[in-house]
Amino acid sequence: MQVAILGCGQLARMMALAGIPMGMRFSFLAEPDEDASPVNGLGPIVTLREGVAVEQLYRELGQPEVMTVEREQIEVARLQPFSELCPVYPPVNALYQCQNRWRQKQMLMSLEVSHTPCVPLREAVDLNTATDRFGFPLVIKHTEEGYDGKAQWRLHNDQDVAAFAQQAQWREVSYLAEPTMNFEREVSFLAARSPQGDIRFYPPTENVHRSGVLLHSVAPAQALPASIAEQAQAGLARIQEHLEYVGMMAMECFVAGDQWWVNELAPRVHNSGHWTMQAGLASQFENHMRAVAGWPLGSTRLQGAAGMLNLLGIPLDQKALLTDDVSLHWYNKSVRPGRKLGHLILQDADVQAVRQRLLALNEKIYGDS
Amino acid sequence: MQVAILGCGQLARMMALAGIPMGMRFSFLAEPDEDASPVNGLGPIVTLREGVAVEQLYRELGQPEVMTVEREQIEVARLQPFSELCPVYPPVNALYQCQNRWRQKQMLMSLEVSHTPCVPLREAVDLNTATDRFGFPLVIKHTEEGYDGKAQWRLHNDQDVAAFAQQAQWREVSYLAEPTMNFEREVSFLAARSPQGDIRFYPPTENVHRSGVLLHSVAPAQALPASIAEQAQAGLARIQEHLEYVGMMAMECFVAGDQWWVNELAPRVHNSGHWTMQAGLASQFENHMRAVAGWPLGSTRLQGAAGMLNLLGIPLDQKALLTDDVSLHWYNKSVRPGRKLGHLILQDADVQAVRQRLLALNEKIYGDS
Repeated sequence: MQVAILGCGQLARMMALAGIPMGMRFSFLAEPDEDASPVNGLGPIVTLREGVAVEQLYRELGQPEVMTVEREQIEVARLQPFSELCPVYPPVNALYQCQNRWRQKQMLMSLEVSHTPCVPLREAVDLNTATDRFGFPLVIKHTEEGYDGKAQWRLHNDQDVAAFAQQAQWREVSYLAEPTMNFEREVSFLAARSPQGDIRFYPPTENVHRSGVLLHSVAPAQALPASIAEQAQAGLARIQEHLEYVGMMAMECFVAGDQWWVNELAPRVHNSGHWTMQAGLASQFENHMRAVAGWPLGSTRLQGAAGMLNLLGIPLDQKALLTDDVSLHWYNKSVRPGRKLGHLILQDADVQAVRQRLLALNEKIYGDS
Repeated sequence: MQVAILGCGQLARMMALAGIPMGMRFSFLAEPDEDASPVNGLGPIVTLREGVAVEQLYRELGQPEVMTVEREQIEVARLQPFSELCPVYPPVNALYQCQNRWRQKQMLMSLEVSHTPCVPLREAVDLNTATDRFGFPLVIKHTEEGYDGKAQWRLHNDQDVAAFAQQAQWREVSYLAEPTMNFEREVSFLAARSPQGDIRFYPPTENVHRSGVLLHSVAPAQALPASIAEQAQAGLARIQEHLEYVGMMAMECFVAGDQWWVNELAPRVHNSGHWTMQAGLASQFENHMRAVAGWPLGSTRLQGAAGMLNLLGIPLDQKALLTDDVSLHWYNKSVRPGRKLGHLILQDADVQAVRQRLLALNEKIYGDS
């Protein structure tokens, strides 16, 4: 089966490496300025060019039987024409609904999925509504830009609000304002859905961030109230069914006691699911490819526990990284400070052992920072 | 790191797919008539040509930092010159010692590793010695040819012996004669050894054959006496140390009660270790590549249990094969009856569950045969 992936980053790389063993062949669609080094050698790379017919690009991609994407920040108008030549999964409309935080929130409201409250900001005066309702510190998020904590602001007082209003670029709901949530931890729920409507949940995964970037994950999340797992998985299923979704989806949640709120949805494979790559089950990448190909989904049952540590701005040195019984996934990207360049995975009998080993690795690699 | 693999079959394919995530790049050295489809798309394929200097082939291979092999049946004289340009692992001498059954047996004798007894056959008269010692049925194995039960004969009476002697091609120890062993099961021991001498054992694996070809494996082997595991692993370690071995090695053993005998050694990754590919540890392919690269070895600790079913002569149909929570590894080879074309892997909490699911899969795929 010939499959095309829009995007050439590490998620595209890991999707291809999960599909090749199952007999898939890949091609990649790159933005004009995109660095395709993560997928180099895994199949032809075709660049999106203005003025070139979609049919021509489709032929250059090897006439794929299905297309998928590695990111949601894609102009829907560019992707839509491909869906007339082959199935595009996740469906283009699902990407459209998820790629804007305000559309996401409206969907969560309509489907009655618990989420962090927000005030949509259309103009400077809406900031007053938000501060009246949520107080300080107030969190502002761009509705369409930003990942890994970028395009977000934290306003601590009226001066911050005035300064933000001054530099903000106002158009139809450019930003959302949210309260600072008093949560204890972040847990992500990951599920694959097939075109036939079969849904498989991975064990809930607990995530620790550093400077807004995911640092490490542990699965299964420990001592998570059963009511949260049930409600969150039911909510994720409602979202996937509503969107007629196909593929992997991640739902990041804040958790405090027995309360939980969706922070954001990612309509794709997700960093918090990288631990699935060597955990004795079908990885999120494998299940994404199985789903988009219309093949039966694979096991999401975890024996024991697993953990993942992101390699952020760390140069490749296998002799140093491959100690302590970990496995390494490297993305072939050039090294820049803080950049996601790879990750380590480890398994153990229980979460306690995984967590201790992750913390030791973290200290060894990043020092005390 | 640039790595060259001699051979272009499924083992080379799976080695490359294990090395690429760790940042390795591959090239492949093919025999003139070799079908390279399993490694197509994973790196340049260079064909061994008579009259072309080794230095030239080495350059075409991208000047690899290390070379490895996917099979032991290779003319040592062809491989040796490469070892003057870069390390070749396993060492050429280790391949030489293992590629001939008689040299293998002599090594097992000298290292006092329990093995099936044998009589070396240099000429027809040696068959009498063998029948006197072992009786019937007598098993004859070619010393250099044959895998998956090929180049083996079973002699039931004097007529069989005479017929075999008639068609045999005698030269210096062309054949070994062995008794028919009364064993209860076949267990393989798999270990990786690093250039630094670190050895990691995978859990013993129990194998079931059909018509001389491995059909399925389950790990860990159930109710294996601790004395056997200890003796066998100590024996395998002596062999690896004696050969200054680097990489994966498999030791197939017959087991009856608390007795065991090495049947044969494979100086490479092995079909009975394919279950390690998705079992929550570093696979045999990953550990082989880590060993030959001189990197620290990865975890061989299994949580729960795992199993593997070979796909023999079964056409590729992912919708049919990917059910029952299995994962699929397909080799991109053309379909021929009985040919190893891929395998399925599954995991579960215990061996009993794995075995039941394997038997059900076996019946579903192969019927009652």
